[in-house]
Amino acid sequence: MALIVQKYGGTSVGTTERIKNVARRVARWREQGHQIVVVVSAMSGETNRLIALAKEIQANPDPRELDVAVSTGEQVTIGFLAMALKEIGIQAKSYTGGQVRILTDSAFTKARILSIDEQNMRRDLDAGNVVVVAGFQGIDVDGNITTLGRGGSDTTGVALAAALKADECQIYTDVDGVYTTDPRIVPEARKLERITFEEMLEMASLGSKVLQIRSVEFAGKYKVKLRVLSSLEELGQETSGTLITFEEDSKMEQPIISGIAFNRDEAKLTVHGVPDLPGIAYQIIGPIAEANIDVDMIIQNVGHDGSTDFSFTVNRSDFARAKKLLEEQIKPHVGARGIDGDNRICKVSAVGVGMRSHPGVASKMFRTLAEEGINIQMISTSEIKISVVVDEKYLELAVRVLHKAFELEQVAATNI
Amino acid sequence: MALIVQKYGGTSVGTTERIKNVARRVARWREQGHQIVVVVSAMSGETNRLIALAKEIQANPDPRELDVAVSTGEQVTIGFLAMALKEIGIQAKSYTGGQVRILTDSAFTKARILSIDEQNMRRDLDAGNVVVVAGFQGIDVDGNITTLGRGGSDTTGVALAAALKADECQIYTDVDGVYTTDPRIVPEARKLERITFEEMLEMASLGSKVLQIRSVEFAGKYKVKLRVLSSLEELGQETSGTLITFEEDSKMEQPIISGIAFNRDEAKLTVHGVPDLPGIAYQIIGPIAEANIDVDMIIQNVGHDGSTDFSFTVNRSDFARAKKLLEEQIKPHVGARGIDGDNRICKVSAVGVGMRSHPGVASKMFRTLAEEGINIQMISTSEIKISVVVDEKYLELAVRVLHKAFELEQVAATNI
Repeated sequence: MALIVQKYGGTSVGTTERIKNVARRVARWREQGHQIVVVVSAMSGETNRLIALAKEIQANPDPRELDVAVSTGEQVTIGFLAMALKEIGIQAKSYTGGQVRILTDSAFTKARILSIDEQNMRRDLDAGNVVVVAGFQGIDVDGNITTLGRGGSDTTGVALAAALKADECQIYTDVDGVYTTDPRIVPEARKLERITFEEMLEMASLGSKVLQIRSVEFAGKYKVKLRVLSSLEELGQETSGTLITFEEDSKMEQPIISGIAFNRDEAKLTVHGVPDLPGIAYQIIGPIAEANIDVDMIIQNVGHDGSTDFSFTVNRSDFARAKKLLEEQIKPHVGARGIDGDNRICKVSAVGVGMRSHPGVASKMFRTLAEEGINIQMISTSEIKISVVVDEKYLELAVRVLHKAFELEQVAATNI
Repeated sequence: MALIVQKYGGTSVGTTERIKNVARRVARWREQGHQIVVVVSAMSGETNRLIALAKEIQANPDPRELDVAVSTGEQVTIGFLAMALKEIGIQAKSYTGGQVRILTDSAFTKARILSIDEQNMRRDLDAGNVVVVAGFQGIDVDGNITTLGRGGSDTTGVALAAALKADECQIYTDVDGVYTTDPRIVPEARKLERITFEEMLEMASLGSKVLQIRSVEFAGKYKVKLRVLSSLEELGQETSGTLITFEEDSKMEQPIISGIAFNRDEAKLTVHGVPDLPGIAYQIIGPIAEANIDVDMIIQNVGHDGSTDFSFTVNRSDFARAKKLLEEQIKPHVGARGIDGDNRICKVSAVGVGMRSHPGVASKMFRTLAEEGINIQMISTSEIKISVVVDEKYLELAVRVLHKAFELEQVAATNI
């Protein structure tokens, strides 16, 4: 008998019919003797509906009161799911975040969990109940209702799993796992049986379609086993999804590269001929960050003749704003020679914990792209990821040839 | 400076535009220096929408879980109204029933209030906040969410007024007060400046369109001054509604009759020739009550020859069921001679505390009806009400002639 926390997102509980399906899925796990805690999101569309109404009242809704209104979305779902479970003979009891006592700080609309009282849930589990908990919400020390912001329900699931020392936290979604790359680009893309947390974090561009990055970080921190599963699979024909582990499994042959991630939604900016002096990076990136523009890659090579070139990438939608900022404020301030930019680029990354001990990955990646005549515009590396920026027209080609070069269509190959 | 509790129903907060109107109305009271607690219902239609969805999941929704889901309706409104108040510069803070700590019993969907902790509200009021409270809901001693059932938001308003020792509890609705009778039948019907709780209770048929009877009982018990007001009146042109007082005002000339109430929705049943023995009333009414049929009037006259006739009225929709019960079970059991019934009757009542000391009211009422050739089928009296059952075709005529006979179109006449 295991203790399992399951999380179902808004699409999985989007209609009363789907809520009944979730109940049947939960029932199957329960009937196998497991103790089950279910975390649910608001029915799809509900949160946006409430936010839109709030904005009719206040252009910038008061954060405390917005949380009061918006947190009702999940509260409705827990009531409905508990009903659906009882209707098929499964004992169940619902909990709001406040009823669990998921204590958060008071940062309304983006609160962080401070502690979870697991006693009441434990008592109900031991009494044979399925415990149904509203995701995305908590209360602060003064009893105010808070919400966790983006990815909140995933985070609730992981936090409950950590507090209850659950055997596994299962995130049910509309995909059946994490793939070596996007199957729409590479039909041979293979579902990964397991992936490490670090890889999952570096695969943001693939992974973010599956799991909110914040919940993955949280799971890594608290050593919670996460599993991504599909809520759309027919009962009786479920697959085992992808397990995201905090331990590198030494028992199995580990592929060096786990997947090819990519991001089409980028733009690059270069500041040419900036003085090669201390503090120059801050003078460029500081104003960009203050303007609330997220920066992804940052590259600065060694200078010569006392000056250097400084490049970074931003989300494509921020390109024009960032370029204007560079030209009008940053360029004169830092005394740069010129500003250059391109919003038709993309980023392609090879990710894998195995590359730590296998120095040949970068070389193989660059050779593969060169053989196809794909020019690499920028390179950035971390311990377990190599990213290149290329013209966006090469995106699909680059992903396909890299996926093939690293033999990702094969299970557990030592792919270098 | 007064402390005022205001309650706004679902229609008054049915759209974001109307919520903004409520905020403006509250602001006017606040700007006069009063401390204001606002109790709100769910936006109109929302409670029914949630119940309908729940019934898609469970034909008879689990009461605890239904309360979890349905209580969100009011929670959304408090968030929105607090936002609307802040938007126009009024300090405000919302409270769910649980956050106030409106402690109820655990009778889900029809809970009763046990106690109210007024400390937090008092602190916020003293800090200059308008306190916005979700009506219709509370928590039990275990922290479960409960709802108060029908009329719940009115009851919340009255209960908060009692706990805070408020100067007045204002119930905003879509009528501007309590009338001497229904203006659709008697155009000369006059809005009452004030009415006693007892009269209000006896005028159920008029009053229930305005206030839930349970909240009136509650107000009477805790000596809360209730005022019925319109939320539709233009700001700056508000009238003072009808004050429902627990004290008979000896200073003003008191009319003997305050209003003519009526109920079209009744049916009468008679059990003929039952043995005139102790316990016979219980043997008839007991099974009716057990079948969950509400009984209104009950009339049993003195018997002769050892038998008597027993009559009562029920809601017209229960007529067939009650008649069947009488014929199949009760008649053979009590040994009655026969069962008789009529579902085309109505009840007309004259209500007024003044009739306690004025014995001529009944006589005047009967003479007035006789002059119009209206046959009285049944008569029942209480200390402050005389009710007659007549053929429903006479309803409008009876109400009109009685309203005129007691000169109700005139202010504060000694109308006998």
